[in-house]
Amino acid sequence: MAAKKEKTLNDLFFETLKDIYHAEKTLVKVLPRMAKAADSDDLREAVQHHLEETEGQVERLEEVFKLINQPARAKTCKAIVGLTDEAKEIMKEFKGTDALDAGLLAAAQAVEHYEISRYGTLKAWAEELGLDRAVGLLDATLQEEKKADETLTQIAEANVNRRAEAA
Amino acid sequence: MAAKKEKTLNDLFFETLKDIYHAEKTLVKVLPRMAKAADSDDLREAVQHHLEETEGQVERLEEVFKLINQPARAKTCKAIVGLTDEAKEIMKEFKGTDALDAGLLAAAQAVEHYEISRYGTLKAWAEELGLDRAVGLLDATLQEEKKADETLTQIAEANVNRRAEAA
Repeated sequence: MAAKKEKTLNDLFFETLKDIYHAEKTLVKVLPRMAKAADSDDLREAVQHHLEETEGQVERLEEVFKLINQPARAKTCKAIVGLTDEAKEIMKEFKGTDALDAGLLAAAQAVEHYEISRYGTLKAWAEELGLDRAVGLLDATLQEEKKADETLTQIAEANVNRRAEAA
Repeated sequence: MAAKKEKTLNDLFFETLKDIYHAEKTLVKVLPRMAKAADSDDLREAVQHHLEETEGQVERLEEVFKLINQPARAKTCKAIVGLTDEAKEIMKEFKGTDALDAGLLAAAQAVEHYEISRYGTLKAWAEELGLDRAVGLLDATLQEEKKADETLTQIAEANVNRRAEAA
């Protein structure tokens, strides 16, 4: 049982924080490209709005790092690299087609779901670790991600109707 | 506007089907490793149960390929590669520690959220394309993924209580 004391939930929390910090910083770079690529005004505005939120989310994460007395460091988040690579593929392969926005919406929602999962986990761990202020910060971002996902669903539905009318 | 006719929602549906087909086939390989690594019986059994479901989900996807008269082909899903790489890192770095199951649960939930997002999108597109039988198949898997995510949340909560009692 001795070996079981090596790494703790504190370490896991810190590792996962570095992972999502990298994810958010990656999104700050990729979201402007997605906004620019979007065909419909609704989608472009939603992505631009989420870009502003994402910049605030980066700052919240930096506050959480401070709360646990650790440097704000990013560690390559392979999941977000994969998710944003898929988004870039969609932008390239469906550029100029009627299906582009549907593909961008799907890519953006996959990213949102990843973040909802990560922030849900981090919030639960912060609760367990008694990091009350971190819980508040992580929950604020979690709620923004859920709202962003709902907005994307609404745009996807409107997009379907728009295409149906054009057909 | 002429260039806008090149690729359609049908193409996007087929591309995304190949992506999730690769994801499911990857999970058939990775889930047994996650089950074996799990510390608690509850988590191991949940992952094993989900492995059986995943094998059925692969078959459902093969039926959807048939419905659209396309060969069942996998196309590397970079997102699932990233997500499963993160799971493998957790298994390596937290092996033998009390935080291992928390890390495995987080990794499994990130995978579930990815799949929920993908099947939600595919189901919506199948509806738009009038592929009624595909809608039923995709929805059956979507419901399994949501249930799997709920089960993992319950295990995560029990896991927290178990650790609290042991502390």
